[in-house]
Amino acid sequence: ASVCTPEGVHQFSDIANFQDYHGLKEFRQAIAHFMGKARGGRVTFDPERIVMSGGATGANETIMFCLADPGDVFLVPSPYYAAFDRDLRWRTGVEIVPVHCSSSNNFKLTVEAVEWAYKKAVESNKNVKGLLFTNPSNPLGTILDKDTLKNLVRFVTKKNIHLVVDEIYAATVFAGENFVSVAEVVKDSEVNADLIHIVYSLSKDMGLPGFRVGIVYSYNDSVVSCARKMSSFGLVSSQTQFMLASMLSDDSFVDNFLMESSKRLGIRHGVFTLGLKKAGINCLISTAGLFVWMDLRHLLRVRNSFESEIELWHIIID
Amino acid sequence: ASVCTPEGVHQFSDIANFQDYHGLKEFRQAIAHFMGKARGGRVTFDPERIVMSGGATGANETIMFCLADPGDVFLVPSPYYAAFDRDLRWRTGVEIVPVHCSSSNNFKLTVEAVEWAYKKAVESNKNVKGLLFTNPSNPLGTILDKDTLKNLVRFVTKKNIHLVVDEIYAATVFAGENFVSVAEVVKDSEVNADLIHIVYSLSKDMGLPGFRVGIVYSYNDSVVSCARKMSSFGLVSSQTQFMLASMLSDDSFVDNFLMESSKRLGIRHGVFTLGLKKAGINCLISTAGLFVWMDLRHLLRVRNSFESEIELWHIIID
Repeated sequence: ASVCTPEGVHQFSDIANFQDYHGLKEFRQAIAHFMGKARGGRVTFDPERIVMSGGATGANETIMFCLADPGDVFLVPSPYYAAFDRDLRWRTGVEIVPVHCSSSNNFKLTVEAVEWAYKKAVESNKNVKGLLFTNPSNPLGTILDKDTLKNLVRFVTKKNIHLVVDEIYAATVFAGENFVSVAEVVKDSEVNADLIHIVYSLSKDMGLPGFRVGIVYSYNDSVVSCARKMSSFGLVSSQTQFMLASMLSDDSFVDNFLMESSKRLGIRHGVFTLGLKKAGINCLISTAGLFVWMDLRHLLRVRNSFESEIELWHIIID
Repeated sequence: ASVCTPEGVHQFSDIANFQDYHGLKEFRQAIAHFMGKARGGRVTFDPERIVMSGGATGANETIMFCLADPGDVFLVPSPYYAAFDRDLRWRTGVEIVPVHCSSSNNFKLTVEAVEWAYKKAVESNKNVKGLLFTNPSNPLGTILDKDTLKNLVRFVTKKNIHLVVDEIYAATVFAGENFVSVAEVVKDSEVNADLIHIVYSLSKDMGLPGFRVGIVYSYNDSVVSCARKMSSFGLVSSQTQFMLASMLSDDSFVDNFLMESSKRLGIRHGVFTLGLKKAGINCLISTAGLFVWMDLRHLLRVRNSFESEIELWHIIID
């Protein structure tokens, strides 16, 4: 109803009013439902575990505040989203220790690489609180296979450290295997679900970055409770909650949107990588996200030289 | 335009898109304009100093992150808004040292009380970074007179510590003297404006708590720059920015709203305090806010006993 009608005024007052930290019930239900859809309907989410935050930026910071103290360490596979240095570290005092992934196996994240980084960090007297990675990977555009994911969750269970998976690109997979969410392997009998947490957002999968919808989804009741208390610093505007509850509850719209979006991403990825190939540039094979990871080694003046990389970088951006 | 028209789709895509950390220009202009109105038009604000945050909750935390390190102290007059223990301290590690205000002079904040608290804190080897208070006061509903405010800003200048004034109830003054914003005295020649910061929000003056509009307004360029970088954790939804830019630019609507709101607050305050008086309960004289500060001392079983206060509190809330 228009805000100029008596009914409209009543609705406006409902909307403008303070929503408690749980958020609007319809909003949480719609988000949980959507999170399932964005993962191909192979998994369901509990609306009671949906915690709001100011974008994925706020969600990643919130989960760090919940899980770690200043000086504690999270292992993060590299290359990683450059702004993690802000989101995970800046105000929390948490340290990032990179897990080195190598071009020799296409930057695939392996349990061995995590184990090595963990061991090195412990040897340096670091208090390792967990492992965090993006899946689909930002900036690689690759996805983790189910076996690797299973082995990684078993590894964190064995070490009793946390696992945070940032799945904000879940619905962008445009080719190849299905995306496997950590939600699909959390019920594995060898996993302690209390250690598993998902960061989500509508910025990528629905293309709504301006709406600042970040989600912390944790299987750990204490983390849900703590994160919800922290959500007072980054609640989603009630107006936006109302609109999204309605938009995301429209099953046929959402299904069509996700299918069309993934199709268009695939086409554009194809056009872009083909163009690069014609220019003599190969890319890492990727099946998700908005990225191409280009191999520019043949353009370096001196191979395996960091200076030459910086030189090339300046040529590109200047 | 409706989202179902070509024009509407274009507008929706503009709105849903990411707004940079400065926020929509029209939004910042409208907020700056409104902040002047909410202070009786006696002062103007620069849109370039408007920094967004997730509600006043987020704004107060942001300014602490900007100004203080863990363990640093802010002086806060008591009684104070109970959630400051969360907003100012919880994730920043900042300490609150209360400035004791006394019933003997109607809890008026004095420079002497601040000076005493400052001295005691310094003697305990605390690093005092600033003074923060609400004006109009939450929970007293009182406002500071211009001379006291001037003396307080001179005091912080002399000590080279920061002053944060939370003015989220600026437009709720319903009787007595005009509200004097710290913005009115910041140009005093004996003041270092780099030390002065205002926290604002639309939750109280416009009655829009659900929209999560918190503002950090600083006269210090470095603080504006730092707070803006931090606003990535609590940006206002672009949808809400667009709507408020339009709503707050309607001068006659805003003028009428503020006048009517203050009139109604005054009437309700009168009804409420009169009812309490009939029940034998006197209230601190207040001219702003949504509060009444009741004198319940005659209901205590034992006077000047904290235990009796707790006992009475339980009788009231149980």
